[in-house]
Amino acid sequence: MISCTICTIGDELLIGQVIDTNSSVIAKAINQIGISVALLHSVGDNREDIHAAIDHSLQKSDLLILTGGLGPTKDDITKNTLARYTGSTSFYRSSAQEAHIIAICAKRGNNLLEINRVQADVPDTCSVLENKLGTAPGMWFTYKEKVIISLPGVPFEMEGLLPQVLQRIKTHFGASLSPITHKTLSTIGIPESVLALKIADWENSLPKTLHLAYLPNPRTGVRLRLSDYESKNGEQLIENAFSQLRQILGNAIYSYDNETLEEVIAKLLLEKKYTLSTAESCTGGKIGSIFTSLEGASNYYHGGIIAYHNNIKEKILNVPRQLIDTYGAVSQQCVEAMAMGAQQLFHTDWVIATSGIAGPSGGTKEKPVGTLWIAIASPKTVYSKHFIFSNDRLRNIDRFSVTALNELRIHLLQISNNE
Amino acid sequence: MISCTICTIGDELLIGQVIDTNSSVIAKAINQIGISVALLHSVGDNREDIHAAIDHSLQKSDLLILTGGLGPTKDDITKNTLARYTGSTSFYRSSAQEAHIIAICAKRGNNLLEINRVQADVPDTCSVLENKLGTAPGMWFTYKEKVIISLPGVPFEMEGLLPQVLQRIKTHFGASLSPITHKTLSTIGIPESVLALKIADWENSLPKTLHLAYLPNPRTGVRLRLSDYESKNGEQLIENAFSQLRQILGNAIYSYDNETLEEVIAKLLLEKKYTLSTAESCTGGKIGSIFTSLEGASNYYHGGIIAYHNNIKEKILNVPRQLIDTYGAVSQQCVEAMAMGAQQLFHTDWVIATSGIAGPSGGTKEKPVGTLWIAIASPKTVYSKHFIFSNDRLRNIDRFSVTALNELRIHLLQISNNE
Repeated sequence: MISCTICTIGDELLIGQVIDTNSSVIAKAINQIGISVALLHSVGDNREDIHAAIDHSLQKSDLLILTGGLGPTKDDITKNTLARYTGSTSFYRSSAQEAHIIAICAKRGNNLLEINRVQADVPDTCSVLENKLGTAPGMWFTYKEKVIISLPGVPFEMEGLLPQVLQRIKTHFGASLSPITHKTLSTIGIPESVLALKIADWENSLPKTLHLAYLPNPRTGVRLRLSDYESKNGEQLIENAFSQLRQILGNAIYSYDNETLEEVIAKLLLEKKYTLSTAESCTGGKIGSIFTSLEGASNYYHGGIIAYHNNIKEKILNVPRQLIDTYGAVSQQCVEAMAMGAQQLFHTDWVIATSGIAGPSGGTKEKPVGTLWIAIASPKTVYSKHFIFSNDRLRNIDRFSVTALNELRIHLLQISNNE
Repeated sequence: MISCTICTIGDELLIGQVIDTNSSVIAKAINQIGISVALLHSVGDNREDIHAAIDHSLQKSDLLILTGGLGPTKDDITKNTLARYTGSTSFYRSSAQEAHIIAICAKRGNNLLEINRVQADVPDTCSVLENKLGTAPGMWFTYKEKVIISLPGVPFEMEGLLPQVLQRIKTHFGASLSPITHKTLSTIGIPESVLALKIADWENSLPKTLHLAYLPNPRTGVRLRLSDYESKNGEQLIENAFSQLRQILGNAIYSYDNETLEEVIAKLLLEKKYTLSTAESCTGGKIGSIFTSLEGASNYYHGGIIAYHNNIKEKILNVPRQLIDTYGAVSQQCVEAMAMGAQQLFHTDWVIATSGIAGPSGGTKEKPVGTLWIAIASPKTVYSKHFIFSNDRLRNIDRFSVTALNELRIHLLQISNNE
């Protein structure tokens, strides 16, 4: 199998000033054309370190993709380092890239400086990958039967160059490329360790070419990824394995191919032309903000009350004061009354209501930090459920919100199934 | 200077499914205690690759920090690989970590499984770094005069462990650490390029040992960091430079040492015992959720209305229908009426109200995507202001929210100054 190493260059990466997103974008694209990525690394703008990184990469793989260090300023030394590494004896000017440089400077209203023009000069050991979105060209080196590709570090420019780079890699490596398939499904509501036990038999009986990975995330639940690096029918093998998994996990699977929980819910609501509102105490607007982050949310989401103080619950949502005094604001009685109050106020088919203790203070022995009551008002009735989590405030708010979304999803599915 | 390598482990990184944020968080923290980072790399969940990465790292640096591959499932092999690498002959169970595992499972209401308990077992060549936020402990190996630290890959758990890790690194390397001083201040409301022009003279006159970095962030504005890597009185030099900068930037500076905008506002509100509510249209609960993410928010934040649909603005916030029909929901008239409606409903001293077009659809020639109206109701009057941004939906919602917070801050400061 052809193997690739990705190396990102820049001091800003090593001091943690910038998060490297280029590696991830390139890795995803490279995997999809049937090349495995063996290693990602990041080094500073330093000749020795870049040289060592190239050495190390070519030992490990057939293809090296570098980004960064191609700017016009003194600290950008990737091009000269590559020239020396590949034994270049002179530079030539790419007239195609020079034309792009002139056009870009004109468009930006900048004077064309010699420092810009020189960016079109490349070592005679490479061919140019034209960059129309920026002044620095990409470079393609074929060196001792390996391929070295150098791309600009600005993500927008790198991504602009990527299609032509991938095309050229496919042409170059041709028949050596392996069939490769990845597929992911997303589960919610089952902790990773419980999930692992639940699906252990299934995992052990997977075809040998399939590899399973767990991707837990407090915001999205545990995603499961199956990869096939060998088979021509990898897609079919994974589909079969996933369909067996559906027998085991049922509704705990909420999406395939990275659709988010809120996107799944939005679809369910839109299908039935249902409307939704929220009555949030402990989640403080988070659930509203999750829905309204989606384009077109106004087609189903009408609005919400952030009922943070108890007198808001009483005055706006009509939760009886006596009920709060008797059972407390974090109670089944209160959260159900909040949901019903919101349904009356907003006239929506569905309501999500939350009341809980996010912490770090406010917990008691009976109701520790992490306690959550959720109510879901449907067109017919009100459901409620109790949870206990144990995290810090921000994680609790995240978990509370995701759990409430999931309860809504489950009740939406049940109603659809009963029809 | 002591040198560090960071290695993140996980197949999900090599196929580009997850962006590695751990490297950047650790690199930043490590730099701040006077250790330089020589290399970042990412490898898959594969024994040979992890082994090779450890070898390569220890050749290049004194300290290796690994994250990932410590979960309870079969694809997590970092612990066994480290055991073999460091010549461990047996594992021991950390009773402290076992206690955390038991507590976490109990708190989450999960059964305690053997698969969880086994996570407390570590090689006899390491000491345990207790992880209170998750089941997998960190591990500290001192190996051939080098240090290898293994941390969980879940960012939240890794960050929870980081303070004790940094403390132990400082103790271990002691006098070999370089004097290093970083200080950051945060500005808001001035774009990076305008800011750069405004402070160019100040920057050029900085003492030679000081290095300035711009850290722009749509969520927090532009932060400016001064670093001193040499001087014993670095702190004093930076303080002097910052106090000159205050003369130039005034109120655009909202905090020192990474205090957030909402924390600054919370302090201002608490000082005067002011209360706050929100009336959000385009920000859809985001502003409420920003305040309620702070501990103790209930001391000043009473609640809010997410008035996403126009009939919610009308029915709950008492915005006259005629006003919406005449001027539109995204207008000075409407946002001021929303703020006044919320003030009547919630009886709070202050209100933040927002109405705008986050996009991608809904824009017109007069009111393009990115248009925002903010109103701030104070105890005495209502202010409003108009902005136009031009980003995608999520960035717009972030910018809208931060801009609204900053307007509240500015009016709180003005009222304080006039008293």
